[in-house]
Amino acid sequence: MEVVDHLAHERKKAQFDVEAMKIVWAGSRQAFEVADRMARLAASDPVFRKDNRTMLSRKELFRNTLRKAAHILNQVVKLGLSEEEASKLRFFMDEPAYTDLHWGMFIPAIKGLGTEEQQEKWLTLASKMHIIGCYAQTELGHGSNVQGLETTATFDPTSDEFIIHSPTLTSSKWWPGGLGKVSTHAVVYARLITNGKDHGVHGFIVQLRSLDDHLPLPGITVGDVGMKFGNGAYNTMDNGVLRFNNVRIPRSQMLMRVSRVTREGKYLKSDIPRQLVYGTMVYVRQTIVSDASCALSRAVCIAIRYSAVRRQFGSQDGGLETQVIDYKTQQSRLFPLLASAYAFRFVGEWLKWLYKDVTQRLQANEFETLPEVHACTAGLKSLTTTATADGIEECRKLCGGHGYLCSSGLPELFAVYVPACTYEGDNTVLLLQVAKILMKTISQLGSGKLSVGTTAYMQRAEQLMQCTSDVCSAEDWLKPSVILEAFEARAFRLAVSCAQNISKAPNLEEGFLELSAELTEAAIAHCQLIVVSKFIDNVQGDIDGMGVKEQLHALCCIYALSLLHKHLGEFLSTGCITPEQAALANEQLRSLYTKVRPNAVALVDAFNYTDHYLGSVLAFAEAATYEIKALKMEVARGEQHHQKNWYVILRK
Amino acid sequence: MEVVDHLAHERKKAQFDVEAMKIVWAGSRQAFEVADRMARLAASDPVFRKDNRTMLSRKELFRNTLRKAAHILNQVVKLGLSEEEASKLRFFMDEPAYTDLHWGMFIPAIKGLGTEEQQEKWLTLASKMHIIGCYAQTELGHGSNVQGLETTATFDPTSDEFIIHSPTLTSSKWWPGGLGKVSTHAVVYARLITNGKDHGVHGFIVQLRSLDDHLPLPGITVGDVGMKFGNGAYNTMDNGVLRFNNVRIPRSQMLMRVSRVTREGKYLKSDIPRQLVYGTMVYVRQTIVSDASCALSRAVCIAIRYSAVRRQFGSQDGGLETQVIDYKTQQSRLFPLLASAYAFRFVGEWLKWLYKDVTQRLQANEFETLPEVHACTAGLKSLTTTATADGIEECRKLCGGHGYLCSSGLPELFAVYVPACTYEGDNTVLLLQVAKILMKTISQLGSGKLSVGTTAYMQRAEQLMQCTSDVCSAEDWLKPSVILEAFEARAFRLAVSCAQNISKAPNLEEGFLELSAELTEAAIAHCQLIVVSKFIDNVQGDIDGMGVKEQLHALCCIYALSLLHKHLGEFLSTGCITPEQAALANEQLRSLYTKVRPNAVALVDAFNYTDHYLGSVLAFAEAATYEIKALKMEVARGEQHHQKNWYVILRK
Repeated sequence: MEVVDHLAHERKKAQFDVEAMKIVWAGSRQAFEVADRMARLAASDPVFRKDNRTMLSRKELFRNTLRKAAHILNQVVKLGLSEEEASKLRFFMDEPAYTDLHWGMFIPAIKGLGTEEQQEKWLTLASKMHIIGCYAQTELGHGSNVQGLETTATFDPTSDEFIIHSPTLTSSKWWPGGLGKVSTHAVVYARLITNGKDHGVHGFIVQLRSLDDHLPLPGITVGDVGMKFGNGAYNTMDNGVLRFNNVRIPRSQMLMRVSRVTREGKYLKSDIPRQLVYGTMVYVRQTIVSDASCALSRAVCIAIRYSAVRRQFGSQDGGLETQVIDYKTQQSRLFPLLASAYAFRFVGEWLKWLYKDVTQRLQANEFETLPEVHACTAGLKSLTTTATADGIEECRKLCGGHGYLCSSGLPELFAVYVPACTYEGDNTVLLLQVAKILMKTISQLGSGKLSVGTTAYMQRAEQLMQCTSDVCSAEDWLKPSVILEAFEARAFRLAVSCAQNISKAPNLEEGFLELSAELTEAAIAHCQLIVVSKFIDNVQGDIDGMGVKEQLHALCCIYALSLLHKHLGEFLSTGCITPEQAALANEQLRSLYTKVRPNAVALVDAFNYTDHYLGSVLAFAEAATYEIKALKMEVARGEQHHQKNWYVILRK
Repeated sequence: MEVVDHLAHERKKAQFDVEAMKIVWAGSRQAFEVADRMARLAASDPVFRKDNRTMLSRKELFRNTLRKAAHILNQVVKLGLSEEEASKLRFFMDEPAYTDLHWGMFIPAIKGLGTEEQQEKWLTLASKMHIIGCYAQTELGHGSNVQGLETTATFDPTSDEFIIHSPTLTSSKWWPGGLGKVSTHAVVYARLITNGKDHGVHGFIVQLRSLDDHLPLPGITVGDVGMKFGNGAYNTMDNGVLRFNNVRIPRSQMLMRVSRVTREGKYLKSDIPRQLVYGTMVYVRQTIVSDASCALSRAVCIAIRYSAVRRQFGSQDGGLETQVIDYKTQQSRLFPLLASAYAFRFVGEWLKWLYKDVTQRLQANEFETLPEVHACTAGLKSLTTTATADGIEECRKLCGGHGYLCSSGLPELFAVYVPACTYEGDNTVLLLQVAKILMKTISQLGSGKLSVGTTAYMQRAEQLMQCTSDVCSAEDWLKPSVILEAFEARAFRLAVSCAQNISKAPNLEEGFLELSAELTEAAIAHCQLIVVSKFIDNVQGDIDGMGVKEQLHALCCIYALSLLHKHLGEFLSTGCITPEQAALANEQLRSLYTKVRPNAVALVDAFNYTDHYLGSVLAFAEAATYEIKALKMEVARGEQHHQKNWYVILRK
């Protein structure tokens, strides 16, 4: 069979140093090298094979995940991998597993909420995986509203125990990953009740299954919630359901760092600031933003390579047809997603810095920036996950019919990614949190209280309300200051307009509810401004490598101007730009697409993804699309045997 | 277990006659009765059970589909069902099957392209299913560009046969439903070659498998293309791959109604107009628009019932939390989709009329309206399928975490629906076809040639370029004439702007390519205008039933004003409305949401969907969400048996 590298001529066109861009994408040479090494390790290890995943039955699929998770543990020890390497290897294993919850939620919850003695006892067991833990918060009837949880933990002073109970059907724990089949223990969130008084939701360590035979303990009813969206995808995870029938645990298993119950049943708060909880949320959401850039860049890589190989229409006299990547319709959908992948990468790196910064402040008991930081990470989580989920599906559609095949990798990538829009804060609920901070900031303007962090620009209220864009040529839209001003003015004016409308309502709360759809739009505008400004900061910094800065500048402008086009109504209705300036922005956008076109394949090569990680027959780095597909044709004799059965059924 | 009907109080709120609305939705009392009877028949027959579908392995799934398809054939005979009833029963079977292609593509292709003798021979066999056929057009390398197909049919005068051959890998037939496992025959599209001359793509009947043992015939390599997106979904279909190695068929198996090859190898065209082919495309796309309203209404029904049952936040002192349907954020995402479902229903009914009309014209050899009709159906196919696919996914997200469970019905509904955006014309390619007609219509303005059908409004060019909306209160946005004028002006001005920009290019073709992204936007604006105007026509007609007309009027305004909000940049940049009028539209939209809110559950009840058809544990018509879910908990002893195995694997 002929094997032609259909991408070689594309790579020759690149106008920048791809190796240098790889370092920029990775964050540093060291980060690049670790990722590169671990990606190759995962790709070369047959245990991590995943091309058969969408064909496995649920049970086979789950066994497969158990094997992979155990293999990683062994490899980490055997190869003496560092924490960073182990984490990267887990990343390139590329499937959700119970271990994600054990390491990512169960252990951090004990670290955050447990006393030193509790940490000593439970983390020792957990770090060796002598126990396996999950995080049982969400209930069948209670997701976003954590304060509405119904499970109870009633202190019984006669036995010095808590009685954990599920009083209603809606109080059943529902969703925790790792719960359905694997976990021996859980951090369970329940309403603490002592002496008949409800002290609200607290965390408790509860053993669920026997360490001898893995059977559920008395009073525990536990199972799997069933199939979830997609082939493979999150079906590798045993998301579970859990009910307690008066299950008793020792008092010592309440996590008592922040508040505790005495032997006599007295409820006491410690002097540990409650704000520490927000620090953890900032951490988790920051990792979600990083993951967004990974997932989106992966989909974009597949779609761009496919679009460079796929040809359709445009042939004169029987010659080669036009590469679909040359069509403006394809470019105008694909390149903004490419630009978004880079944008999310940079804002993710900035969030890492922000988390470090806020952690230091918390340790120094400085809390004043926390609400803004918390809202900012919530908003960026919402913005990037929504855009990524939609972007993956758009990339799938951009691969035409072939994107519908599981072997394209895109259906599973979508199905495994999309819950990020819902978990760790529903994206709409999070936008309303951002909107609250925006409304508060506006209400305090002129009060002398300075707005901080990403809301600092609002301090320039007068200028932002009055400025008009001075764009008078398409080239003007390439200036970062011009872009920034338009995005700042639009975000501010939308927020002010909401505040004005709210003030007409009988009270603020009613006004906020009535205007909530508009408030989410104002919050999105604010979050887009953050992403744009961080992208600009990066482009304006020192960047090594021939042509790298130019490419990033072009992508930055594509990101901003495609958003301007998408949300044009907001820019125009607030008077930030004129219709003529909007037309110039579109003109510039078309030029930018032409500029990026010859670099598109190289710009996705810079992600340095292995064929194993991509997992798509449409996007092998060096071979051609169709040759690989042909290998997938499950034809010939092997199949013909079965066909007789079908014949029998057909003729029945 | 307590069973409470959480929807009863919602139904009491309805301000209109739901039974009358059911008739409006169905199209007529007769249509309602047939659909109602067939839906109940499907729901009550255990063979049509589908709640286990997402858990079946591919092989079990496929056997299950074969059983269902065969059962329908038997039932149709046994119960003496009419054509209309049989078609509805197939609809409520609710899964893609090889029979869809046999009845929907193979037979119609022979009817359309075969001579009377050919029809006599092959339709007799096919109608009794003595042969099973599929439609083999698309190739691995050729989808949208049918003229680029590579499979050849070379006439051999020595034996009076055609030699069907796949000269390259990219010429492999790829995708045909029913091909992978079931079909005995196919209508194969191939380049006709006689005397060394290529006459372009023609249709041929080719036998693929033996009628004795169902094995592929010599020279035929055939198989299944593998897993596709989603659980269940299109994996019930055996989409296939097919290669020919010099397969010989008699000359009589070329479909010769439109053109033919003589015994001597001479190629002759008949006097049958080629335009007839477009009639078939109009028919197929018209059915796709109808299907869009079914799929979207189904998703909306699930999301609205769920939103009425689900409560989150807003509780004071431990009372009931707020129904999520009461949040403006939920309403502003959900109600435009409800309105779209109704809008697509009405435009679908209109397309049925249009198809009848064009068929009569074709029979009378009147072809002048055909290009516009063809573009109109292409555009509406694109518009409604894109909106429906996005809308189903939005409904899924609106059900929070629970929408991610297969038992919600939404993941499978999305996965089975979404290929409609790609098959029968990629949605972007179709929009460009609409754009071509728009550009042509504009170029002919003032030439004396009248624009026809849905482009007739363009005749009023001068008025459309100069008009400004006279809205000066929120109530003004309730007037159909006001809405229609704004949509007409926006569509026309966008098209004119594209035409002007194209005229600046060195030539029209280059200009069209350069502007193609903008052209798709102009095409969408035109198609939205069609949907809005047909909705208005319906609302302005006679409608029986208390309050029905008022509800439809509200939905019509929601459909139009939510689109105005979404595409605000286009309305503002073209000067059709002012920012102040846009603010009034938003204000009116909020009022309309409040008006529809108490009727929301009744408006989805009017779809008259059975629990079987909906297939969602979130949306049972009479029982409550959570009680049903509890039944799904796969817990207790049965599962514990397996847990020992996992324990062993975990401890390995």
